[in-house]
Amino acid sequence: MSTTSFSLLQTINDPADLRHLSRADLKQLATELRAFVIQSVSQTGGHLSSNLGTVELTVALHHVFHTPEDRLVWDVGHQTYPHKILTGRRDRMHTLRQLGGISGFPQRAESVYDTFGTAHSSTSISAALGMALAAQRKGENRHAVAIIGDGAMTAGMAFEALNNAGVADANLLVILNDNDMSISPPVGALNRYLAQLMSGQFYAAAKNVGKSVLKNAPPLLELAKRLEQQAKGMVVPATLFEKFGFNYIGPIDGHDLDSLIPTLENIKGLKGPQFLHVVTKKGQGYKLAEADPVAYHGPGKFDPAVGLVKSTAAPKQTFTQVFGEWLCDMAAQDGRLVGITPAMREGSGMVEFEKRFPDRYYDVGIAEQHAITFAAGMACEGVKPVVAIYSTFLQRGYDQMIHDVALQNLPVVFALDRAGLVGADGATHAGAYDIPFVRCIPNMSMACPADERECRQLLSTAFAQDHPVAVRYPRGAGAGVAPLRGLEGLPFGKGEIRRERKAGGADAGAPRIAILAFGTLLYPALQAAEALDATVVNMRWAKPLDQALLLEVAARHDALVTLEEGAIMGGAGSAVLEALAAAKVVLPVLQLGLPDVFIEHGDPAKLLALQGLDATGIENAIRGHFSLG
Amino acid sequence: MSTTSFSLLQTINDPADLRHLSRADLKQLATELRAFVIQSVSQTGGHLSSNLGTVELTVALHHVFHTPEDRLVWDVGHQTYPHKILTGRRDRMHTLRQLGGISGFPQRAESVYDTFGTAHSSTSISAALGMALAAQRKGENRHAVAIIGDGAMTAGMAFEALNNAGVADANLLVILNDNDMSISPPVGALNRYLAQLMSGQFYAAAKNVGKSVLKNAPPLLELAKRLEQQAKGMVVPATLFEKFGFNYIGPIDGHDLDSLIPTLENIKGLKGPQFLHVVTKKGQGYKLAEADPVAYHGPGKFDPAVGLVKSTAAPKQTFTQVFGEWLCDMAAQDGRLVGITPAMREGSGMVEFEKRFPDRYYDVGIAEQHAITFAAGMACEGVKPVVAIYSTFLQRGYDQMIHDVALQNLPVVFALDRAGLVGADGATHAGAYDIPFVRCIPNMSMACPADERECRQLLSTAFAQDHPVAVRYPRGAGAGVAPLRGLEGLPFGKGEIRRERKAGGADAGAPRIAILAFGTLLYPALQAAEALDATVVNMRWAKPLDQALLLEVAARHDALVTLEEGAIMGGAGSAVLEALAAAKVVLPVLQLGLPDVFIEHGDPAKLLALQGLDATGIENAIRGHFSLG
Repeated sequence: MSTTSFSLLQTINDPADLRHLSRADLKQLATELRAFVIQSVSQTGGHLSSNLGTVELTVALHHVFHTPEDRLVWDVGHQTYPHKILTGRRDRMHTLRQLGGISGFPQRAESVYDTFGTAHSSTSISAALGMALAAQRKGENRHAVAIIGDGAMTAGMAFEALNNAGVADANLLVILNDNDMSISPPVGALNRYLAQLMSGQFYAAAKNVGKSVLKNAPPLLELAKRLEQQAKGMVVPATLFEKFGFNYIGPIDGHDLDSLIPTLENIKGLKGPQFLHVVTKKGQGYKLAEADPVAYHGPGKFDPAVGLVKSTAAPKQTFTQVFGEWLCDMAAQDGRLVGITPAMREGSGMVEFEKRFPDRYYDVGIAEQHAITFAAGMACEGVKPVVAIYSTFLQRGYDQMIHDVALQNLPVVFALDRAGLVGADGATHAGAYDIPFVRCIPNMSMACPADERECRQLLSTAFAQDHPVAVRYPRGAGAGVAPLRGLEGLPFGKGEIRRERKAGGADAGAPRIAILAFGTLLYPALQAAEALDATVVNMRWAKPLDQALLLEVAARHDALVTLEEGAIMGGAGSAVLEALAAAKVVLPVLQLGLPDVFIEHGDPAKLLALQGLDATGIENAIRGHFSLG
Repeated sequence: MSTTSFSLLQTINDPADLRHLSRADLKQLATELRAFVIQSVSQTGGHLSSNLGTVELTVALHHVFHTPEDRLVWDVGHQTYPHKILTGRRDRMHTLRQLGGISGFPQRAESVYDTFGTAHSSTSISAALGMALAAQRKGENRHAVAIIGDGAMTAGMAFEALNNAGVADANLLVILNDNDMSISPPVGALNRYLAQLMSGQFYAAAKNVGKSVLKNAPPLLELAKRLEQQAKGMVVPATLFEKFGFNYIGPIDGHDLDSLIPTLENIKGLKGPQFLHVVTKKGQGYKLAEADPVAYHGPGKFDPAVGLVKSTAAPKQTFTQVFGEWLCDMAAQDGRLVGITPAMREGSGMVEFEKRFPDRYYDVGIAEQHAITFAAGMACEGVKPVVAIYSTFLQRGYDQMIHDVALQNLPVVFALDRAGLVGADGATHAGAYDIPFVRCIPNMSMACPADERECRQLLSTAFAQDHPVAVRYPRGAGAGVAPLRGLEGLPFGKGEIRRERKAGGADAGAPRIAILAFGTLLYPALQAAEALDATVVNMRWAKPLDQALLLEVAARHDALVTLEEGAIMGGAGSAVLEALAAAKVVLPVLQLGLPDVFIEHGDPAKLLALQGLDATGIENAIRGHFSLG
């Protein structure tokens, strides 16, 4: 791999550089681009399979459309490495997803070619429609193109956008990048439908521009065609998307520049909403990734010649794994449990659960809204749903959590993975807001386990309640406290004192400080407390707050420090302030947590340190705020 | 009208009472039920048109299905008055939507026949699917039926549910109650499609049970049929929903019990997901409502013989109207402005705007997610979108506000109507959580105008910013301070002192108290302050907080009171606590606002008083908390 020449690719510093290339050169460029992606990702880690799938499409789009004047909106955006490489960022690819480096997703601040920041799925059609109609209003003759995967197409908001766009008289092109694979294997009726479309023959691109050839065929020929299709049990291609008012073209081979380029050129001349169905293969051109696109979805560093190698060192157990094991164990004990995921089987640690309890596993697709109300419906009937959802994706089902679960006080467990900073994925995926946005909702409770053992215990506690409870835990591993085998819970809504301040000593005159930690920052707090001789409370619950413990601690300290890996504004520290004010307790409180800014991608430990949320930072912040020596 | 006899209806105290009735008696029952609905709503106000549309469907469903063992889930739920009347609540209809009375929506706590609480649209298929799969898991042989309108069908979550349900092997029946009219006239491709379906002839019910008759017809006949349809430019009925894996039946006449009952009885015997397309007419059977279903969507009290009469007294101007006028005036001044609504033209006060600026008005359908990202796309291009959305519905677009607007810091104005308590609509529609869930998001700002004049001014301020701003204002009228004609804004992020405490006097020894009011509760605060001799600050902005003003006021008072019509947890009062703690200012603070419970429907003024948020309540709370005389 490393011997590949990038002689042509090295001449492309801007998409304008590839517009004049011959078809043969473009094919060579695609070959080099693919090799560059493999080499680059093998050195930085990142998304691989999806980027190998978009190499030719990216070349074709920048060749045919006049970017950046024409707007490309890449849905989800983790498939934009080829786009980044061709738009002036080739030499920065080695900084990908690292602190201060380029983002793994499109970012408006990073490049004029990144017309819309994406990362959460299914936003592209809405954004591109907005751009298309804005251009229309301003009398600007530009194209807006949304490139969306078949998985992302199953989310409700993509449907909302299609429904709206189909009747808008906009120069909008939606490209369905159909690889029959989002992160987990796809589910749902739409995917079945797309598979039906693909099971037909590929049409030559040129024939499919404009309305389907069938439409202009003599009635009898058409009837014969339809009869044939009927006989095969197939549907008429294109029907679904044409129902939405789009002109449907495809499916075409998304790895064939000879199909892609003429088709796109023809589409450029058409007015009104166009829908191009492109079929690609995740991992295309790298055999190992083709064979296992899930494994190569987001690999770490690897040797391209060897592929992924299982680490021999036993990795630290992640919170995700703790959840997955708990889910299986609790399911084995309690037949009422069902597990629900919006298309995040791997990320949420549910692979084993699906294997062992296939009839109690519900992957509802990229459909957070539906996932939560579906859970509410089940909970009405005495089934006990556990919804595994990233903190950041709960934002997609917020109204459903309020209106369908909390208002009816239904016993649904929300297992919120990726709470707090998420590292390489950056600001779009930050689980920074869940404490404020969950705790303001009546009937909701929220647990913040400090370590792996507590995570399992608090999941058990949550599951035992007769009302909705969210359990939030961060990405990756924690302090390394091994979970107990049993399924006993911890007391609901109760914290514990983990370290008592030592009275007297050299610092006898210093203010008596207690640190109230919510979640995994308990461990750096304990370190800081050694240096400060502070009391440390493991609060465990952002809601309900352990008021008795809080007031008891407040009564015998001079100042409190609250600590959480989440937004300070409205967070657990603010819950402490509210409780103190209500109890008429007046004393100084320092709130430590995430500031009111979006925090970019980078190594999680470094990011926490930069926010002053490691042991040293916590100690320094406390010393500074309270003017300690 | 008042002479109608309810002799048969009076014998129906439970759906079991109507299962044995003859078809003729059921028709008589429907007639009486319709008359009862008209009489009842004319006396209480409430939803009318939609309930007149569901009379026969309700009778048929309770006749055919064994409720409550079979589950009916009514989407939105404002069309459930006939259902309530037939399920034991006839004698409580006069208490509808009143304090302590029955809800205008289904509520699990109210009746076992209300299997799922609804109010926000498009939740029913998800909930019913959850119930159906739960029944399957538990080996219970019951039916789950979702009844959903064509407007609600356009929301993304309905699509997510269809996509998931079509492949689930569940005994789920989805009934599309198609009246081609949500609250505003419908928009979008789906509605066009449904209109196409309806333009075909009605099929006799019996013929349509099971797969379409066409499917079993000889090929030649089928070809002829299709040719005919092709010639008329029509599509093959049923295609869209069958694509989703449903067995499609219909369309049938939803006011004809002779169609409805046999069809439903036949469907009961079918396995797997069924889709019944029923066509009804809003306002059916009441000429005035048929002629103007929008006006009769949610009327106040009226004389059924006369209909709605325009009040001769000039009504107080509502905040909604203030917004509508501002929108038109700002649009006239600034050509960049566009107005976006997710299907709430009337409720959001945009009727006049649409008339005057049709090409700058975007009704995107019931599609809050899409509405916001669409706005973000436009904002990228220098267009300035104003998204008019109820506070409670912003919950549906929360992720889009975070991920697409705030993260990219795009200048989108969110005009949040119905902030705070909403009165008759109750807990489902409460705009109680927006301050906590908006202010925790970086880059977001939030204004809380105290009256009509400030509402207009702060909308102008919001529109002038180069970043996203939400302006929240309550339902109905405010203090009655007439807006100024101009479009000048108020300073960004700045409050004002409205009343200064009078030094000395009889209460010279009493604590110096300042009330910090956020929003319209400023006026009762001013009243309370007269009695208490307190300072009153009109804070105006929940974010950014006017810290300078806060600290200046804090420095010369002994205690502060924060006041907001919104959740205390994480609200504007907590922002005050955070700012004081960060500034190391330690003094007692009393937070007044909405408690951590869901608050049911009732007269808004009464509800506020019950929460202690009228002048007397505020005064008493302050006296009590600070032990004043």
